[in-house]
Amino acid sequence: MALNKLPYRGTRDFFPKDKRIQDYLFSIMIKTSESFGYEPYDGPLLEEVELYKAKSGEELINEQIYSFIDRGERNMAIRPEMTPTVARLVAQVHRESSKPLRWYSIPRLMRYEKPQRGRMREFWQLNCDIFGAPGRTGEVEILQVAVELFENYGANKSHFEIVLNDRAIVDTVFKKIMGATDAQTYRLYKIADKSKKVNEEGLKKMVAEVGLTPAAENIFYSYLQLKTFDEVDAFLKKNNETEIADLFANFISLTKSNDLSEYLVYDPSIVRGLDYYTGIVFEIFDKHPDNRRALCGGGAFANLLQIFNEDPLPGVGFGLGDVTFQDFLEVHNLLPNFDHPVNDIMITFQEDQAIEVSMKLARSLRKAGLKVVTNLDAIKFKKVFPTAEKKGVRFVTLMGSDEFAKNQIQLKNLATKEQHTIDLNDLESILKIIKA
Amino acid sequence: MALNKLPYRGTRDFFPKDKRIQDYLFSIMIKTSESFGYEPYDGPLLEEVELYKAKSGEELINEQIYSFIDRGERNMAIRPEMTPTVARLVAQVHRESSKPLRWYSIPRLMRYEKPQRGRMREFWQLNCDIFGAPGRTGEVEILQVAVELFENYGANKSHFEIVLNDRAIVDTVFKKIMGATDAQTYRLYKIADKSKKVNEEGLKKMVAEVGLTPAAENIFYSYLQLKTFDEVDAFLKKNNETEIADLFANFISLTKSNDLSEYLVYDPSIVRGLDYYTGIVFEIFDKHPDNRRALCGGGAFANLLQIFNEDPLPGVGFGLGDVTFQDFLEVHNLLPNFDHPVNDIMITFQEDQAIEVSMKLARSLRKAGLKVVTNLDAIKFKKVFPTAEKKGVRFVTLMGSDEFAKNQIQLKNLATKEQHTIDLNDLESILKIIKA
Repeated sequence: MALNKLPYRGTRDFFPKDKRIQDYLFSIMIKTSESFGYEPYDGPLLEEVELYKAKSGEELINEQIYSFIDRGERNMAIRPEMTPTVARLVAQVHRESSKPLRWYSIPRLMRYEKPQRGRMREFWQLNCDIFGAPGRTGEVEILQVAVELFENYGANKSHFEIVLNDRAIVDTVFKKIMGATDAQTYRLYKIADKSKKVNEEGLKKMVAEVGLTPAAENIFYSYLQLKTFDEVDAFLKKNNETEIADLFANFISLTKSNDLSEYLVYDPSIVRGLDYYTGIVFEIFDKHPDNRRALCGGGAFANLLQIFNEDPLPGVGFGLGDVTFQDFLEVHNLLPNFDHPVNDIMITFQEDQAIEVSMKLARSLRKAGLKVVTNLDAIKFKKVFPTAEKKGVRFVTLMGSDEFAKNQIQLKNLATKEQHTIDLNDLESILKIIKA
Repeated sequence: MALNKLPYRGTRDFFPKDKRIQDYLFSIMIKTSESFGYEPYDGPLLEEVELYKAKSGEELINEQIYSFIDRGERNMAIRPEMTPTVARLVAQVHRESSKPLRWYSIPRLMRYEKPQRGRMREFWQLNCDIFGAPGRTGEVEILQVAVELFENYGANKSHFEIVLNDRAIVDTVFKKIMGATDAQTYRLYKIADKSKKVNEEGLKKMVAEVGLTPAAENIFYSYLQLKTFDEVDAFLKKNNETEIADLFANFISLTKSNDLSEYLVYDPSIVRGLDYYTGIVFEIFDKHPDNRRALCGGGAFANLLQIFNEDPLPGVGFGLGDVTFQDFLEVHNLLPNFDHPVNDIMITFQEDQAIEVSMKLARSLRKAGLKVVTNLDAIKFKKVFPTAEKKGVRFVTLMGSDEFAKNQIQLKNLATKEQHTIDLNDLESILKIIKA
């Protein structure tokens, strides 16, 4: 029986066109990260399951992780996220590293998901993190990196927005102002997260089940109504939380002086479930009506190294997945065309005997740094051009019996249709025309 | 209990320095492959175990593969090699693709090995393949790609050599000239492969066990003595195998006219066990006495698509692993220094109040395409330079209270020690100096 030609469910085959798109996506991620001095890192594909038990959500471990017992009886997982790995690496070197530490990676990750639009089992995720930045500057810089990234693909505020909250505010509201217990706070996090996806009745039902006082319930509903940074400020001050209001106002002021304001929107429902966030939390949303989804999420954490018994090191980071992001670029028509490769020149010959000199020319042009496609057997004149188009070349050379006899080539510019007869040994003239 | 900070056995953490080395290795692989018009592809990390059962060696399946049953009861493997995946992809598209198809990939692979020098459980491997090239031109081109690759890292014939054989010759010698059965031929392959690693007595013992005639044994020993292409030619002609001798001579002639001769050495012990090879087989060897190892292996195959019930499509390819190759570059001192990143400029300020204008300058320089590292709090003058060195910048800016008052910066070239006082808003002058 013949084997299946299709890839495993939820994974992708990257044919050259697909791989060129991926290479383009990654190149802008790398360029942007490095323009801020972020340095690249990577870790193994496999990590011990223990590492995720310590930090990742339960759903991830129980339902989404690819795990197995290796031949040495170790319980291993294909990494479903990069944060535990970066924490493990930073834990090894942070003591002797000058701060801030700026790191990025584009790891390949797997989760056992039901494949659907924007969600695959195998995906990549740009991770940018800054560790040990003073005050709130790390939070501001990470937002700058994210905005610059989007702008470098040609996106602007008509395409995306950053919805933002501060976990310190959320905790102050729930615990101090409302007087909720830790257990109630945990449930309120979940409710805030769902609050925009349910109707008023559904929301009231969930809130009622938490067992808050009526006064606390009212505060919670007022909190969920907050829509601007000014409203948050007023709300906190009205509740005598001036210190936390000022800390947040200071952060907002920094975002203004760094040209971030036009992208930022306050959203009380953004909490991001993961336990480790302690400062700002944010998501970048696609504004396109057909694709209202989070493309990117991140936040600030005080102590990711705790699980390794290391001293606290504050950090801020974000992750941006390739699948939803490619959808974003496509829906906004921001993805260039990658149907064909980009090459400089195709070397062809119309007489078998010309193969040797043609191959020699190809070698010389490659040595000069060009991308050179050769046609390995004689090809008819009229078949040269459709082939050249598929190969994405700007120039072709031709050598028929006349040219072979005179040791010449025809060099043709496909865009201008200009054609030159040049001596085969006159590499300088050939390069001059191609590089013009 | 604190978690383990070290990576899984046989895998590597890539700290920024390590990742920069990897990025360098890959960049030359990509540049070289694309200079020949090879197009990039990739496939999923996981493939069905069935795919490897059809083509890979038994050792790979039984002892080296990472396999597990997924939550949908599929028997999946983390890919241990790329050839079955590329065959699966080519099988999907070869009918509508113009030939030759030139593809490359640098897949991440895993094998359950005992880690040792040059061998890890997780590794990468450049794979270049050409499908559907006329005659023996594909074999020649793949050797050219391999040689150009090594040369692009600065290696030459003092560093490496290509040992080569032709499976068509091996089969002719074993089956036609010696009259061996298929089962005997299979055993002779294994013996040829081991022949250089055992002494004469060990070799004789193995050969005796095959059960050949004394005449066939003598031919086998003569075969193993062949050392040059001329000797092979004479040996085949002496045994009346003129046709196969001429086919090989034709191939050797092509390698000569393509400047490959200085790298090529005939070696009768190179057979490469995999069943699918049918034409040339080769390995690239490190010539360094401390590192006599195969760095790369490949060959020509007539019919990789058979397992998908597709029509035959001849191909040639090679694989080059990152671990042994990095050892090769290191042992020959061909690896540049990647201790530090490469950035253009570090923006510093010596007075807290200068943060806002400094960050603004950083943004402008990034927009102009520079790699800009910022120091996010005030830093003393004398601490600027050691930090700048670690960040690999060519320039630093400084802004003390004087400069802040005058809205100026000091721009210092770290190599020449030249220093300029420039108006903060005069971006043009700043860029002119940096880009000079």
